[in-house]
Amino acid sequence: MRGKFLVLDGPDGSGKSTVAAGIVERYKNENKELISVREPGGTKLGEALRHQLLNGDNPPTAKAETLLFAAARAQLVEEVIMPALNEGKDVLCDRFVLSSLAYQGVGRDLGVDSVANINAFATGGLYPDLTIYLRLDPKVGLSRRSKTGAFDRIEDEGTKFHLKVGNAYDEITKLYPEHNIITIDGALPKGEVMAKVFEAIEDL
Amino acid sequence: MRGKFLVLDGPDGSGKSTVAAGIVERYKNENKELISVREPGGTKLGEALRHQLLNGDNPPTAKAETLLFAAARAQLVEEVIMPALNEGKDVLCDRFVLSSLAYQGVGRDLGVDSVANINAFATGGLYPDLTIYLRLDPKVGLSRRSKTGAFDRIEDEGTKFHLKVGNAYDEITKLYPEHNIITIDGALPKGEVMAKVFEAIEDL
Repeated sequence: MRGKFLVLDGPDGSGKSTVAAGIVERYKNENKELISVREPGGTKLGEALRHQLLNGDNPPTAKAETLLFAAARAQLVEEVIMPALNEGKDVLCDRFVLSSLAYQGVGRDLGVDSVANINAFATGGLYPDLTIYLRLDPKVGLSRRSKTGAFDRIEDEGTKFHLKVGNAYDEITKLYPEHNIITIDGALPKGEVMAKVFEAIEDL
Repeated sequence: MRGKFLVLDGPDGSGKSTVAAGIVERYKNENKELISVREPGGTKLGEALRHQLLNGDNPPTAKAETLLFAAARAQLVEEVIMPALNEGKDVLCDRFVLSSLAYQGVGRDLGVDSVANINAFATGGLYPDLTIYLRLDPKVGLSRRSKTGAFDRIEDEGTKFHLKVGNAYDEITKLYPEHNIITIDGALPKGEVMAKVFEAIEDL
């Protein structure tokens, strides 16, 4: 049986890393295999592109940024995600296509449809079996995120950009139901968030 | 007045570098400014991506390869080509969108339409004022190319790939007239090729 493809998405500071760690632990405790990857990255090429995208030395234009995220994603899908799913392993991905729709489609004003088309090419039409959207007031997310270390180039884009991106998620999650999205309130205490996450995964 | 956007394209070994050098020299002799760039590359980001594309350490999948070429192109168009054209300077580019249609669309079996869509996004709909297509039997091109130094990752794909790509050019140049293509027989002596190239540029 094919594995399940799980995605975590939502604005910066919404709790994706914490939830990812919780899911990884749960699989470990249950002795079940889980391939856990992050975007951009997860492959040798992807990590090299992550450096180009986030370090700020050679900042890409908005379109180049979109295409680089898509290139890293194409590599990840073909080299890691699809082979794992086909071997029956579940895969957890921290960010996926919805992030590009929010950050590049809306944040960079390129349009969600254009960015969705680029990504349909990149993913070959792979959609998550479950996208967990951690919904959070982007102001709260930014404030949380500012306490956990230095910002990368995109995190450093400023409050206006991040409010625009954060506010875009609600609309985008309605427009792309094929990502099998459930929305969880990221402002809830960690235990409650995790309970909802595990329930959603078990429902699969 | 906006500058002219000139592109050289054709299979490996068709004489693009020689023709580019001839055009650069002619502009110099006439004391006219010309911005001459190569693909992938021509920007700091583009040169970094060129390394990822051609060195073979982290070989991209066919789709990632297409998206990386497009990312380098997007950066080049926005950072170098458009500003130069808008300042009235002529720009010469060694390879452009047609190369992606031939190498990735046909060579990698991704389909020319898909690759054309990705590139329409990348270039923002910029087309050359003149594309000089150096037509050459791909077998002759490969034989010429093999005498001028080590192969990069794509050049090293083997004869079958390059015959497929080389043979694709004829069809592609018919399908995309918006690239303003003139075809020059790359098997002619250098002096005759250059005479035809200069005539085409003067006709602009």
